[in-house]
Amino acid sequence: MKVGIVGATGYGGLELIRFLHNHKAVERIDLFTSSEEGVIFSSKFGHLVNIADMPLQKIDYGALEKFDVVFTSTPSGVTSELLPPLVGKGPKLIDLSGDFRLQDPASYEAWYGKKAAPLEFIQQSVYGLTEWNAENVQHAPLIANPGCYPTAVLLSLLPLLKERLIDASFLVIDVKSGISGAGNKPSQTTHFSEANESFSIYKTNTHQHIPEIEQAISMFSGVDTTISFNTHLVPMTRGILSTSYAPVMSGVTEQQLVACLQNAYEKHPFVRIVTDVNSLGTNRVKGSNYCDILVKVDSRTNRATIVGVIDNLVKGAAGQAIQNMNVQFDLPQTTGLDVVPFFI
Amino acid sequence: MKVGIVGATGYGGLELIRFLHNHKAVERIDLFTSSEEGVIFSSKFGHLVNIADMPLQKIDYGALEKFDVVFTSTPSGVTSELLPPLVGKGPKLIDLSGDFRLQDPASYEAWYGKKAAPLEFIQQSVYGLTEWNAENVQHAPLIANPGCYPTAVLLSLLPLLKERLIDASFLVIDVKSGISGAGNKPSQTTHFSEANESFSIYKTNTHQHIPEIEQAISMFSGVDTTISFNTHLVPMTRGILSTSYAPVMSGVTEQQLVACLQNAYEKHPFVRIVTDVNSLGTNRVKGSNYCDILVKVDSRTNRATIVGVIDNLVKGAAGQAIQNMNVQFDLPQTTGLDVVPFFI
Amino acid sequence: MKVGIVGATGYGGLELIRFLHNHKAVERIDLFTSSEEGVIFSSKFGHLVNIADMPLQKIDYGALEKFDVVFTSTPSGVTSELLPPLVGKGPKLIDLSGDFRLQDPASYEAWYGKKAAPLEFIQQSVYGLTEWNAENVQHAPLIANPGCYPTAVLLSLLPLLKERLIDASFLVIDVKSGISGAGNKPSQTTHFSEANESFSIYKTNTHQHIPEIEQAISMFSGVDTTISFNTHLVPMTRGILSTSYAPVMSGVTEQQLVACLQNAYEKHPFVRIVTDVNSLGTNRVKGSNYCDILVKVDSRTNRATIVGVIDNLVKGAAGQAIQNMNVQFDLPQTTGLDVVPFFI
Amino acid sequence: MKVGIVGATGYGGLELIRFLHNHKAVERIDLFTSSEEGVIFSSKFGHLVNIADMPLQKIDYGALEKFDVVFTSTPSGVTSELLPPLVGKGPKLIDLSGDFRLQDPASYEAWYGKKAAPLEFIQQSVYGLTEWNAENVQHAPLIANPGCYPTAVLLSLLPLLKERLIDASFLVIDVKSGISGAGNKPSQTTHFSEANESFSIYKTNTHQHIPEIEQAISMFSGVDTTISFNTHLVPMTRGILSTSYAPVMSGVTEQQLVACLQNAYEKHPFVRIVTDVNSLGTNRVKGSNYCDILVKVDSRTNRATIVGVIDNLVKGAAGQAIQNMNVQFDLPQTTGLDVVPFFI
Repeated sequence: MKVGIVGATGYGGLELIRFLHNHKAVERIDLFTSSEEGVIFSSKFGHLVNIADMPLQKIDYGALEKFDVVFTSTPSGVTSELLPPLVGKGPKLIDLSGDFRLQDPASYEAWYGKKAAPLEFIQQSVYGLTEWNAENVQHAPLIANPGCYPTAVLLSLLPLLKERLIDASFLVIDVKSGISGAGNKPSQTTHFSEANESFSIYKTNTHQHIPEIEQAISMFSGVDTTISFNTHLVPMTRGILSTSYAPVMSGVTEQQLVACLQNAYEKHPFVRIVTDVNSLGTNRVKGSNYCDILVKVDSRTNRATIVGVIDNLVKGAAGQAIQNMNVQFDLPQTTGLDVVPFFI
Repeated sequence: MKVGIVGATGYGGLELIRFLHNHKAVERIDLFTSSEEGVIFSSKFGHLVNIADMPLQKIDYGALEKFDVVFTSTPSGVTSELLPPLVGKGPKLIDLSGDFRLQDPASYEAWYGKKAAPLEFIQQSVYGLTEWNAENVQHAPLIANPGCYPTAVLLSLLPLLKERLIDASFLVIDVKSGISGAGNKPSQTTHFSEANESFSIYKTNTHQHIPEIEQAISMFSGVDTTISFNTHLVPMTRGILSTSYAPVMSGVTEQQLVACLQNAYEKHPFVRIVTDVNSLGTNRVKGSNYCDILVKVDSRTNRATIVGVIDNLVKGAAGQAIQNMNVQFDLPQTTGLDVVPFFI
Repeated sequence: MKVGIVGATGYGGLELIRFLHNHKAVERIDLFTSSEEGVIFSSKFGHLVNIADMPLQKIDYGALEKFDVVFTSTPSGVTSELLPPLVGKGPKLIDLSGDFRLQDPASYEAWYGKKAAPLEFIQQSVYGLTEWNAENVQHAPLIANPGCYPTAVLLSLLPLLKERLIDASFLVIDVKSGISGAGNKPSQTTHFSEANESFSIYKTNTHQHIPEIEQAISMFSGVDTTISFNTHLVPMTRGILSTSYAPVMSGVTEQQLVACLQNAYEKHPFVRIVTDVNSLGTNRVKGSNYCDILVKVDSRTNRATIVGVIDNLVKGAAGQAIQNMNVQFDLPQTTGLDVVPFFI
Repeated sequence: MKVGIVGATGYGGLELIRFLHNHKAVERIDLFTSSEEGVIFSSKFGHLVNIADMPLQKIDYGALEKFDVVFTSTPSGVTSELLPPLVGKGPKLIDLSGDFRLQDPASYEAWYGKKAAPLEFIQQSVYGLTEWNAENVQHAPLIANPGCYPTAVLLSLLPLLKERLIDASFLVIDVKSGISGAGNKPSQTTHFSEANESFSIYKTNTHQHIPEIEQAISMFSGVDTTISFNTHLVPMTRGILSTSYAPVMSGVTEQQLVACLQNAYEKHPFVRIVTDVNSLGTNRVKGSNYCDILVKVDSRTNRATIVGVIDNLVKGAAGQAIQNMNVQFDLPQTTGLDVVPFFI
């Protein structure tokens, strides 16, 4: 399999390289960039010396068409223009940016503040939440790889919503992310001395992952809802933990919620249902494609606390993208992704 | 003023020393401990060489009675027995542990799993949330200094609840704390390699600060409610940020919520109402007695997001304790506490 | 005392404000900047709301002349031009940049790669290593405040070199700094995700503090030497620890080295000689003006290990600058600086 | 290949599992412990759910004899007694503790303060610095896997010493390690709030890796020397960086030093010679078996600065142990170890 990566210098791109390097079906990786043509990749990223010593190439449709898969890991607003000419032309396209996730262009433009991709291409794209959409992923020309927050939130909530075990009418989702989610571009917010040893909230109630989550809840569970959703920055590099709160439907027990999750994911190798809160934490999934999920019912309020934990750069980006590639090429989903989390 | 500190070796005790060292009304500090009698304090804590070179003393009622103030900063379950003989005997007593916070001994025993203090002494104690209870604090023989989480939560919610601007019937409180909140005793959870670079949730729906918050909401706003409350561990040393969610009462605007907070705290030097989310974060209050508060209304859900930020060891412990001491001795509340936050 | 700060938005400037806010002899602080005139300072720095709500002012010689003291905390290459017109005009000038530290303009230009200040003004400046130069500091119109690394290195080595107890002919100085030393300007090197969880070496053998250290060793101990000096970046915000290695002169014992340091600093409140290595670490001086020093002799090699520890932003910058101001105004050196280190 | 791990609950053991899980020649892993017999391993380590769900087994010689390889990753002082009965009995033995590294029992007892292993077994052991000792490793019944610091130091210095390009008579080695090097047992030193945001020096001139380094320098380069060696703790989990200083032999240039290193390691896949200091840092090798090496000559002092960088848990422990296992079983050295460093 020949793989092209557009936007290789971002953290999503680097993680794609980390996993594809050990993917037995991948024979060659080419890296593309909108600038820095000809630069030896490992001269920019010392950790990749001996591993990725190829030059960065100029983006060129003729070249891109010859790959089996092209991953795009660019800021939002790029692939909406870049990818349409490639759709259906040869390579499977897996887009890690947000440009093809929202089915409604008006919603995209409202939340992202940028021009949406042409509707016909949005409609050809498939939302790549692998555990919930593998059948559609398999034959799609263009995969909209899910956002990092939506992955943790949706995997933890969808089974419970689909089975109507929790009440979506008051759904509060409080998410926390490591700073790598902000990408590789330096800023005051991500300047070490100002980000270190500080916990903060950002984009109160206005994060662009809100419509993505609501759309996917509707799509996969049939429930239409409006969520409360706030995002926080944790002084660590990797990891997302989402804490969701919802009333439990009348008569439903904690055991039923746990069983529902266990049943939903029993054939899915990357989702683990955790019952001991002390076994949960972002370091338990660090560097891996796992999503760990915990559910507890608070008997005082009869509300459920549902927790989802992922590595934002893996299950929340590059790992899930490769999982989708595996589905498309009829490989076991774990191919190239069967690694042990770091823990420490 | 002569000050005694019982439990000086804990982080609350160390912070008391840090501030009392620069408190102009304090002429002498004595340190007491249940063990290590005679040990020179600065031989245990290198940062205090030249600052606290006195020996640790054995706890002795005769000695304690002669102080103007005695702070107790011990684990829960200690002062319930230790303090009663001292109540009304001379020194003002300011207890940083949780032993005198809950007015209902049965509730204490249920949530703490320990024997409650005798009811008559609980009833003589005053809950030291300074901004809300200064009048009672002034003449109380025994102050129950608030918990760290309750301080951030209550200061940010009480004005809005008291004015009935938000609906307490669905109140979700999601709190995050730096690891110093776990105290100075080593454990696997607080072992650097396992706590570092990980974000986790703990004590789902069962933290002992839940009844404290509910009691204080009832006491200061007249609202009886049952809250959803979950606690998380952030890989940093200091800081608490609470994110609370509640429906806004019909017709109430964001401006009204902001104005309510501004009015409530306009004469309170340690509370700052922040309107720009980018100016908020635990490093903005680090090392100081400030509580920063932000409120935003999500027009899609008509729910408010209310954020409270403190340094858990200062406003959430030692700083507020000294603020209470200042009230009791008719000093300006800022005496000894007028320091600039660290930021970096 | 009226104080002006030029370059207030840098970390040195912020620390000056943190300490001057609690300095009893300072009645007013004005902030100057080369851009952002009129911007309310606390609107840029949320931690300073209620503390520094004044507008930034345009740099203006007429205004600056009226202050009692002007601190300049700018990048190198700025004050070499900015300060000469102010020398001798009224305010004491305390420059935290490197522009007036090197007595030899050619050396400055070689190591800094910038144009040196005019020689006559360099010659009027006094190197503000307070413990070693207070007499000259007292009446100087312009203080060249020492660099962060030189402060830790010089305070720990000078007594031993001056007394000829260690051999300067093979002096290896290996220093480590927190990332705040790189200033407040975002870059890839200081981007959280890339600086976090990594330890690195930079500017091998070419750091501009090398000639400053060699010059000061010569000036204060009479020893001319060429040092080995390498700088490292530690994934933490504050703190410098220097580890120096030198042969011990024949017959000299560890006790003599310790005694030499104790004697040298017995009347200096900010220098502490530590004998237990377990009591040493950058958190023991964090936020304070202390310099902690340890010396050990390795009997196998007959070489001394000499360790100096400071907070780079305090004793290595703003704290020492205020200490120099205190000397100039006949105040106790500890005025405004008598704070307890943070530890945690 | 059937593999047993004794001491699986330590960080070395966890890293062995992380790599052996993806080692194609390993068909089965069994875990042994001196306590906790029967405990499901993943119930202690949540990150290993679905990966290591086997029970911990009691240490039993009959069982251990049947493995192809037994790794021992225990504190020092354990395998000196545990391993002798197994030597030559069937399994290859790879000991990650320090018990068989020093050929002189008296030296072991002096530096470790514990009883040495029996001399005959020390003499049968081979020091497993793979790049320098693969031939002996291949047929050894018992491998003494090198210490973490020695690995970084020796790989970076040995070629230069062996070729007599640097002068060993004044060799200063200043090393810095992440906190995982202290193991998994909680202590005050490794308590998050006290280790975080602090850089410290420990065991001045007395670390037990000193004799190991001196012995290996003599063994592999023929140079007998006494080193200056100090160890520091960096507030991060993983990584070691060693900075060594030595005079350059007369007439030797930086290019010669670089060429010497390049020649020495050109056939060794895990050693990378770095020439740009900005490409060096512990995050460039994090999670991998790489050792990155840089050498620079300071023309002012004519001394070389030699830097070695490894992940202490991988090349400094589990990775090198597996590399040795690969050598013993005639597998490519990279088998199971060909992973991309984490970087972020």
